[in-house]
Amino acid sequence: MEERTEISSLGEFGLIDHLTINNETKNASTILSVGDDAAVIDHFGKQTVISTDLLLEGIHFDLSYTPLKHLGYKSVVVNISDIYAMNATPTQIVISLAFSNRFSVEALDEFYAGVYAACEAYNVDLVGGDTSTSQRGFVISITAIGEVTPDKYVTRNGAKANDLICVSGELGGAFLGLTILEREKKIFETTGAQPDLEGQAYIVGRLLKPEARKDIVEYFSEADIMPTSMMDISDGLSSELLHICKQSNTGCVLYEDKLPLNDEAKEFAYKLQLDPTACALSGGEDYELLFTVSQNDFEKIKVNPSISIIGYMTEAAEGKNIITRGGNKHALVAQGWNHMK
Amino acid sequence: MEERTEISSLGEFGLIDHLTINNETKNASTILSVGDDAAVIDHFGKQTVISTDLLLEGIHFDLSYTPLKHLGYKSVVVNISDIYAMNATPTQIVISLAFSNRFSVEALDEFYAGVYAACEAYNVDLVGGDTSTSQRGFVISITAIGEVTPDKYVTRNGAKANDLICVSGELGGAFLGLTILEREKKIFETTGAQPDLEGQAYIVGRLLKPEARKDIVEYFSEADIMPTSMMDISDGLSSELLHICKQSNTGCVLYEDKLPLNDEAKEFAYKLQLDPTACALSGGEDYELLFTVSQNDFEKIKVNPSISIIGYMTEAAEGKNIITRGGNKHALVAQGWNHMK
Repeated sequence: MEERTEISSLGEFGLIDHLTINNETKNASTILSVGDDAAVIDHFGKQTVISTDLLLEGIHFDLSYTPLKHLGYKSVVVNISDIYAMNATPTQIVISLAFSNRFSVEALDEFYAGVYAACEAYNVDLVGGDTSTSQRGFVISITAIGEVTPDKYVTRNGAKANDLICVSGELGGAFLGLTILEREKKIFETTGAQPDLEGQAYIVGRLLKPEARKDIVEYFSEADIMPTSMMDISDGLSSELLHICKQSNTGCVLYEDKLPLNDEAKEFAYKLQLDPTACALSGGEDYELLFTVSQNDFEKIKVNPSISIIGYMTEAAEGKNIITRGGNKHALVAQGWNHMK
Repeated sequence: MEERTEISSLGEFGLIDHLTINNETKNASTILSVGDDAAVIDHFGKQTVISTDLLLEGIHFDLSYTPLKHLGYKSVVVNISDIYAMNATPTQIVISLAFSNRFSVEALDEFYAGVYAACEAYNVDLVGGDTSTSQRGFVISITAIGEVTPDKYVTRNGAKANDLICVSGELGGAFLGLTILEREKKIFETTGAQPDLEGQAYIVGRLLKPEARKDIVEYFSEADIMPTSMMDISDGLSSELLHICKQSNTGCVLYEDKLPLNDEAKEFAYKLQLDPTACALSGGEDYELLFTVSQNDFEKIKVNPSISIIGYMTEAAEGKNIITRGGNKHALVAQGWNHMK
C-alpha cells in the first residue's frame, strides 16, 4: 500500500519546510529566498521581467491522466515560456497552491519533484509562495521573474511589413495528445478498457511534458538576432499571429506547406480524420516561440534546424491570409483555446 | 434591475481590454505594462522584492458579506503589506483571477474598482495577470513587486536579545469584525433578520478594508531607523512573534498591558465574552507591522503615536513569555489562523 501522510499532521509551516528543505538557489540574483514575507532579487543593472499564470483542476488540467510530477514540471514551463517570449532569461519563480484534504503530503511531494526538476532544467530558483486548503480542486498559481539587458526585450508590437514569420519546433502535437487522452478517458469510463497509447508517446509527451524554448533565446543572443516581435504559442498559431498583427498593425501571409508538423502527429490526425493543418493552426499548448525577424536575418535563421520560416508580414491593408498547398488564399481565423467560452 | 453583461460576450481578450482600458502606470520603474507575455520593470540599481498570495472564496473570504470592491482593495493590500514588511516599497502587482459564470462583467468591474483604488492609494502599477473560468468559486492570485535600496531589506532573523518589540496600530479588530459578520450571517440564515452592525463600523472596517502600513516604512526612512527584524501580522501577533524568535534564535517577553487595543473592539469583545488580549494575540488579518529595533532607537520610536513598544527580546534560553496585567508570567502560544487545520 502506498504511504499516505495527512497534510494536517505537518501544519502549514511544517508543510512549507518539508517541501522546501532541499531547495537550493543557483542564481547570484537570488539575494533572499523562501522563508520571509517576500524574496529579494538583484538583477544588477538588468531589467526585471514578470509573468503569471493561474491553473485550475478541471479547467486547465485533468488529474485522471496527468501525473502530478508532470503537472509540476509543466506548471513551471508554461510560465517561464512567457519570460523567454520576451527574449529574457527566467531566474526565479514563486508558486502558490491550494488543495483539498484528498491530497496527501506524498502527492504534493510528487508535484514538487516536477517543479524542482523544471527549476533544475531551466536554472531557475524557487523563492517563495503560499499554500492553502481549497474546498474542491487543485489550484496552482505561478509567477516567474526573469532578467533582460535593458531594452533587449521583445514585445508583440514591433513587426514590420516584409519581416519573416518564424516558429520554433513542431506544431499541433499537444492538441492531438489531449485529443487521444480525452478519448481514452471516455472509453475507460464507458467500458473500463485500459488506455491504448501505443505509438503515441510523442503527442502525449507534447501535452504532458512540454519544454520552453530556452535554446532559441540563447541562439538569438549567440547569433546576434533581435526579433522584431515574439510571443509563445499557448492558444494556437493563428490566434497568436493575429495578436502580433493587431498589435504591430500589420497583415500577414502564411504558407500551409511551411507549417512544421511532426510525422507521428500527422499520422494520428489522419487516423482521427482531423486536418493536421487545422491542428497546427488552432491547437494550443505547444509552447513553441512565434516570432518575426527582419529579412536581413534570413541567413542566420535558416541555418538553425529548430526554426521554420512559415510566411511574412505585410501591410495591414493586405489582410491576414494563409496560402494553402493548392495555392488558394484564405483569411486566417483564430480558433484557439478560449477558456471564457 | 441591475445591468448584467455576460463575460462570454466579451471573450477573454475583450475582457482584459475592458478591465485595463483606464489602467495608467505611475512608476518610472514600469517599463512595459499589461498586454504582452510579461511586464518589464527597471528598478535602476535597487533590489527587487517579490511576494505572492492566493485567496479562495469559502476559505479566505465570504462573498455573502464581502463587497467585491472591498475584496479587490483588500487583495492588493494584504499582498503589498508583505512588501512593506521587508522595509521595501511596492511598485507593481500582477493579478490573476478565476471565476464561474455566475460572475458578470459588472461584478468584475466592482472588484477591479477596488484593485485600482488600492493601486492609487499605494502608488502601485497593475502590470499584468491572467483570467480564467473556474468550475466553482472565485480565485484571486496576486503577486506584488517592490524595490529596496540594496541591503536595506529587513528579514525575520535579525532580532537580538534586548531589542525592543514594537507593533503599529491596534490589534484584534479584524478578528472581532469577522466574528460579528459570521454571527450576523448565521442569524440571517436562521431567522432572515437583517444584519445589525450598529456601532461596529471600526471592527467591520478592520476586516473588510484593512490598510498596509506604508506610513511606518516611510517613517523608518525619514527617521533613519533600521529595524532588526520585521513581519506583517496576518496570522496573529503571537504566531508571528514566535516566527521571529525562531528565525532569530531569541526568546521574548511581551507585556499584556502594552498591547494596543481599540476601545470599540474591547467593548465588543466583552459583549461576546471574549478576552480582548486573546483577540489581540491570536486574531489574524490586522496587517499591522511587528518589528524589533535596537534600544538605541528608543527615542525615535516613542515619538511616533502609531507605534507601541510591547516588550523586548531575550536570549533564547529564557523562553517566550507574556507578563499578564496581574504580573504573572505565561508561555506565549501560537493560536493564529491555520488554513491547514
